[in-house]
Amino acid sequence: MIQKLSGIAASNGIAIAKAFRLENPELIVEKTTISNTEAELTRFEAALTQSKSELETIKAHTAQQMNDEEAAIFSAHLLVLSDPELLGPITEKIKSENVNAEFALQETANMFIGLFESMDNEYMKERAADIRDVTKRVLAHLLGVSIQSPSMITDEVIIIAEDLTPSDTVQLNPQFVKGFITDIGGRTSHSAILARTLEIPAVVGAQTVMSSIQNDMIVIVDGLDGDIIVNPDAETIAHYEDKKASYELQKSEWATLKNEATVTSDGHHVELGANIGTPKDVVGVLEHGGEAIGLYRTEFLYMGRNQFPTEEEQFEAYSSVLKQMDGKPTVVRTLDIGGDKELSYLQLPKELNPFLGLRAIRLCLEMEDMFRTQLRALLRASVHGNLKIMFPMIATLEEFRQAKTLFLEEKTKLENEQIEVSNSIEVGIMVEIPSTAVMADVFAKEVDFFSIGTNDLIQYTMAADRMNERVSYLYQPFNPAILRLVKNVIDASHKEGKWTGMCGEMAGDELAIPILLGLGLDEFSMSASSILKARSQIRKLSKSEMESHIDTILSLSTSDEVESYVRALTTK
Amino acid sequence: MIQKLSGIAASNGIAIAKAFRLENPELIVEKTTISNTEAELTRFEAALTQSKSELETIKAHTAQQMNDEEAAIFSAHLLVLSDPELLGPITEKIKSENVNAEFALQETANMFIGLFESMDNEYMKERAADIRDVTKRVLAHLLGVSIQSPSMITDEVIIIAEDLTPSDTVQLNPQFVKGFITDIGGRTSHSAILARTLEIPAVVGAQTVMSSIQNDMIVIVDGLDGDIIVNPDAETIAHYEDKKASYELQKSEWATLKNEATVTSDGHHVELGANIGTPKDVVGVLEHGGEAIGLYRTEFLYMGRNQFPTEEEQFEAYSSVLKQMDGKPTVVRTLDIGGDKELSYLQLPKELNPFLGLRAIRLCLEMEDMFRTQLRALLRASVHGNLKIMFPMIATLEEFRQAKTLFLEEKTKLENEQIEVSNSIEVGIMVEIPSTAVMADVFAKEVDFFSIGTNDLIQYTMAADRMNERVSYLYQPFNPAILRLVKNVIDASHKEGKWTGMCGEMAGDELAIPILLGLGLDEFSMSASSILKARSQIRKLSKSEMESHIDTILSLSTSDEVESYVRALTTK
Repeated sequence: MIQKLSGIAASNGIAIAKAFRLENPELIVEKTTISNTEAELTRFEAALTQSKSELETIKAHTAQQMNDEEAAIFSAHLLVLSDPELLGPITEKIKSENVNAEFALQETANMFIGLFESMDNEYMKERAADIRDVTKRVLAHLLGVSIQSPSMITDEVIIIAEDLTPSDTVQLNPQFVKGFITDIGGRTSHSAILARTLEIPAVVGAQTVMSSIQNDMIVIVDGLDGDIIVNPDAETIAHYEDKKASYELQKSEWATLKNEATVTSDGHHVELGANIGTPKDVVGVLEHGGEAIGLYRTEFLYMGRNQFPTEEEQFEAYSSVLKQMDGKPTVVRTLDIGGDKELSYLQLPKELNPFLGLRAIRLCLEMEDMFRTQLRALLRASVHGNLKIMFPMIATLEEFRQAKTLFLEEKTKLENEQIEVSNSIEVGIMVEIPSTAVMADVFAKEVDFFSIGTNDLIQYTMAADRMNERVSYLYQPFNPAILRLVKNVIDASHKEGKWTGMCGEMAGDELAIPILLGLGLDEFSMSASSILKARSQIRKLSKSEMESHIDTILSLSTSDEVESYVRALTTK
Repeated sequence: MIQKLSGIAASNGIAIAKAFRLENPELIVEKTTISNTEAELTRFEAALTQSKSELETIKAHTAQQMNDEEAAIFSAHLLVLSDPELLGPITEKIKSENVNAEFALQETANMFIGLFESMDNEYMKERAADIRDVTKRVLAHLLGVSIQSPSMITDEVIIIAEDLTPSDTVQLNPQFVKGFITDIGGRTSHSAILARTLEIPAVVGAQTVMSSIQNDMIVIVDGLDGDIIVNPDAETIAHYEDKKASYELQKSEWATLKNEATVTSDGHHVELGANIGTPKDVVGVLEHGGEAIGLYRTEFLYMGRNQFPTEEEQFEAYSSVLKQMDGKPTVVRTLDIGGDKELSYLQLPKELNPFLGLRAIRLCLEMEDMFRTQLRALLRASVHGNLKIMFPMIATLEEFRQAKTLFLEEKTKLENEQIEVSNSIEVGIMVEIPSTAVMADVFAKEVDFFSIGTNDLIQYTMAADRMNERVSYLYQPFNPAILRLVKNVIDASHKEGKWTGMCGEMAGDELAIPILLGLGLDEFSMSASSILKARSQIRKLSKSEMESHIDTILSLSTSDEVESYVRALTTK
């Protein structure tokens, strides 16, 4: 029977394929007494061997289809399976207590997991998570239960899951995984962002898919409108095939704009850039006709490792991006950790409200050595391209001045060491804290540019955690308060002859773009895959017309009123 | 040897007395085998009896000097000591395992504590805390260690402690406790607020007092400047006796202003109100010449109990406050829980960032029945005085409209039930979220008044948790961003003929008052004990002069610049 569900449109496109349920089986272990310990040990060894070979395969797949960084998680898992500290007590327990291997494994693993988790140290907690993952895999073999690895999928499918973990998502191969649907998550959840990067259609937060969709049912994912059709009839399939075809056609039209300028119908040029996380992402930016990188998130360089990256490693990464961009503007954001982003080797105390805590520039100004290393690496790389640096989470002018001073000190040091450094590096700030948006006129006198980070700016302005579903109704990009703050920032920058970009989700939003154009935004930075669509849209819009609506829009009372007004404007 | 320490001035006044260290002894329990179980049981019974009689005494003291609500904590402790579920297993353990009473008590108690704490239910967790407290008391008796109860102090002392727990603070008797000094805490910590209510001089966050000050050393607490003098010589004592006398003289001068109007030197009247938590606080408000209650925090009515207060209980409390205020304006804030304020009987899911979560009006709009009950109680009480109602944490106009609709529906229902209700209740909002401060012009058309909650407004505008010491440098009341938002709110209200009050810490701050006056604030609400001082200050200030400085102040770049400017202005 045909069934229609809906969720949050998380990644554009339409896919039609059979369902593949990614399940998380519960493994139940009972304690039994065994008579033949030798046989039990052999059974345990066999499960270990199977698990290892499985992990080797997954690791190889991941390294090939994703990259070595993503594959590293499985190296860690393999290490656990060779660790005598873990294996010794298990075999000992089987031999001396005559218990079954499942029980011995679970007891021993739980002891280590409990120990590591209680250590209040992120690195040890990650080790606990590794042991948990691996134990589960071995237990599954012992119990004869199969565990699914998305990387092992070799059929065209649409994945149905409650949620995708980071270790699931690194394994997704777009060749086979045509789309995915999850019960939980939102537009900015990890899996949603990954779907857009991989250009896989996705609907998230659909709530009931795991209870409604069985394996091999035919499913349509409409990532454009957030719709899900289960067991479609021929007519529905035909309809979505058409919709898919016209979306593909539109995409190919967009592709013709790859080397075109982003100019409005009345001749105003804006810059379309991309947000990236690693040097490898630059290829996609150029393929999609990006004119700039509006946000290079450097924290990925610091993640998934055991210690800070060296100055040399950072220099390599920054240089690589700058060289690939070949003179195009490249805005690098200095380290933004803390809050929900942790480093395993950096022990930060737990905070009651991490989003309102010691993160980003606040932390960098405390950990001056680490910060100076990053600034040096950036300065050294600056000769390879058009580098602009920005500091995240600036709340006061003093913070900017302090960070700028460190930057200038490192620059002078390098010059004294006869190391070549660009003299035209712009130094700007992220505007993502309300105080800074309000004080933009004062900041504009000292910074070279602004980049508005809407995700955080909205979160703080509305006092609503954007990860907390219970207050998600308050995550309102179109609230007039947000638009007024954005206007204040843009106007302040222009008054001082500076420019303003935007690198939050909002910059790529179809409904937001006309308003941002009217407000005078100079640079829009978004997922690479959204650039051509945005260019197509902007080329059809008139800046002066959009400007004429701004006063009205800013005098509206609610987010809903703004959305309706702009919708009417753009569909007329 | 004379020694000078310093900390955060938390409560005004000067006290000189001997030190009393409030210690938290560690109780070490060893397992021993006993031969005479009967004697061990008798020993256990004796410790129980001693503990009970001690608790009865503390409870009686507390009820007499504080109130029944505060004493209730000790009733809960007494109940634990009569609970067969707890006592049964202990005596059983002594008898069957031949272990000492200390060990049997600790093992059994820990089992219950672990069980209750694991339940993820605030009510059960509080029970765990009760068991922990009581177990400690009985253990202390068994081990012959003395536990200190602040309520048992009968000498004039200054308490020295690492920190004061709520159960310590309810026991403070100002007759004997002349002041206190703690190593941790800040100006807005629970114990600091209590010190101001009790008018006991206090310095908090002094960091090293527990390691520096021994019992019976003579100590001077200077709550005006945050100084602590240990072992003062005669000359120093004389100096502080003088300072104390002149402070007392100033206080008595202030007292003459009790029935005077709060009028600036150029004839502008503002209203000075108080923030209160319970009907009992009204006495202090009137004693200190309060013209209004600017904030009645109703959440205390909901705390320290096992279920929601009934409509009748609420009606009694609200009526009591209104009657005592005898027609003076009384602003009641509807329930503000969630965030750091929890109710034991209301299970709220844990949130990653509770300050950005489902709290205050957000929660009330979800728990409509609870909210309607409060509105009914307020409406019924409205005939007894000059009631104004305000909703906390309003972020969008829709939230205000929703809350106002519920208010009007309950009003109509009551009228249909022939229950008398005032027709002149003003309905306003707290302005404590940046979006609302930015949109004040839109809100001003629909609300009757604004009350600016600076504690939260600063926290959200600067994106810094005000309870987190690591980012406390960002809690900046004088940041020009905050002052600009305050101006925006006040101007917007006046344009629509409405009024604006302020009920955060800032409203009573000596340095902030001149600015707020210049900005045109209509009502200042503060601790009752700060009212007369503020009145004295305001009567000496000229509003028009302060107004003339506002443009300059708002164009300054940093909090420090503003503070220096105003300091120069007021000390010239």
